[in-house]
Amino acid sequence: MISQYRLPPSIQNLIDELSKLPGIGPKTAARLTFHLLRAPEIRSNQLASALTDIKLKTRFCRICFNITEEDPCPLCSANGRDHGSICVVSDPLDIVALERTGDFKGLYHVLHGEISPINGVGPEHLKIEALHARVQATPPHEVILATNPTMEGETTALYLAKLLQPCGARITRIARGLPVGGDLEYADEVTLSSALSNRRDFS
Amino acid sequence: MISQYRLPPSIQNLIDELSKLPGIGPKTAARLTFHLLRAPEIRSNQLASALTDIKLKTRFCRICFNITEEDPCPLCSANGRDHGSICVVSDPLDIVALERTGDFKGLYHVLHGEISPINGVGPEHLKIEALHARVQATPPHEVILATNPTMEGETTALYLAKLLQPCGARITRIARGLPVGGDLEYADEVTLSSALSNRRDFS
Repeated sequence: MISQYRLPPSIQNLIDELSKLPGIGPKTAARLTFHLLRAPEIRSNQLASALTDIKLKTRFCRICFNITEEDPCPLCSANGRDHGSICVVSDPLDIVALERTGDFKGLYHVLHGEISPINGVGPEHLKIEALHARVQATPPHEVILATNPTMEGETTALYLAKLLQPCGARITRIARGLPVGGDLEYADEVTLSSALSNRRDFS
Repeated sequence: MISQYRLPPSIQNLIDELSKLPGIGPKTAARLTFHLLRAPEIRSNQLASALTDIKLKTRFCRICFNITEEDPCPLCSANGRDHGSICVVSDPLDIVALERTGDFKGLYHVLHGEISPINGVGPEHLKIEALHARVQATPPHEVILATNPTMEGETTALYLAKLLQPCGARITRIARGLPVGGDLEYADEVTLSSALSNRRDFS
């Protein structure tokens, strides 16, 4: 007779819910659950209210589709940013990375994904129609395509370039090349070939 | 001028809360947060209520300190289990693993950790005093020490063996040896040496 012993339903339920998250398997989920069980009650309650808050307090910015608590988002409503330059990114976290450089002073547009036929993501699933309408309504002087330097990112950039070209704005793509601090010896051939073909005059 | 752009507070808050979990760094926490942001609202709400439930609905079994929704736990209150045999484990998940074998029909005792001076865990932090009292109150015929085959688990087993010896019960330790399906060639020397010294007559 095999014993029918199971974990208490509430424990198993948390393990199941955590297992649904990407990159978290049942073993990790069980480890996290027992960690939270042993931690003070306030820890799991704070996590629970943080989870509820993200849906209650955030929405898309009506202009750039960044995730924000105020609409329009702080970037779209900021004084002194260049409204004639739109940087298109696939993800809100990309904005954080670009803002950290302090080099871009224009506005953004978040696509919330990249075209990926394999995963069934077509242009209609992204905020592409909204970008098209935005560019047509108030034509910018430049649209920077800052999707990832991956197959999906390149496909998306190519699609956007073709779509937005008739609007008359300058369409640019962020550069591919060797990462600063990288080692030429260990660079993959596609990156190295991009670095060669994008070479510039030594100034 | 470096831009002062930050993620919305509710987003950053969830990233911070998730980062406090063991094995989850800020990058994974951000990935999980944006996954939940894109998932339907019910997903994060279900996770939130699962988190609240584990603390509301569960407690320690007053007999074996297993985590349970009913006190005493289903194992301690089950008919037909051998109350004269106590298997000591460090973690409630170990009970699930042992019950899966269907080979043990006695009761358990959960220590909720193992003695680890490096991490500041002494016998007083574990359910050892309760085990001692339990064994003295109703002496079992056998106590099986099923802590992990690690330094901490062995230390804990040794400590328990010395503590419980005067109670007169037979004290046993689960066997160490080659895992079934393992490869002798790749076994580490400590395991192999255990497997050799614990060899049995071929029957």
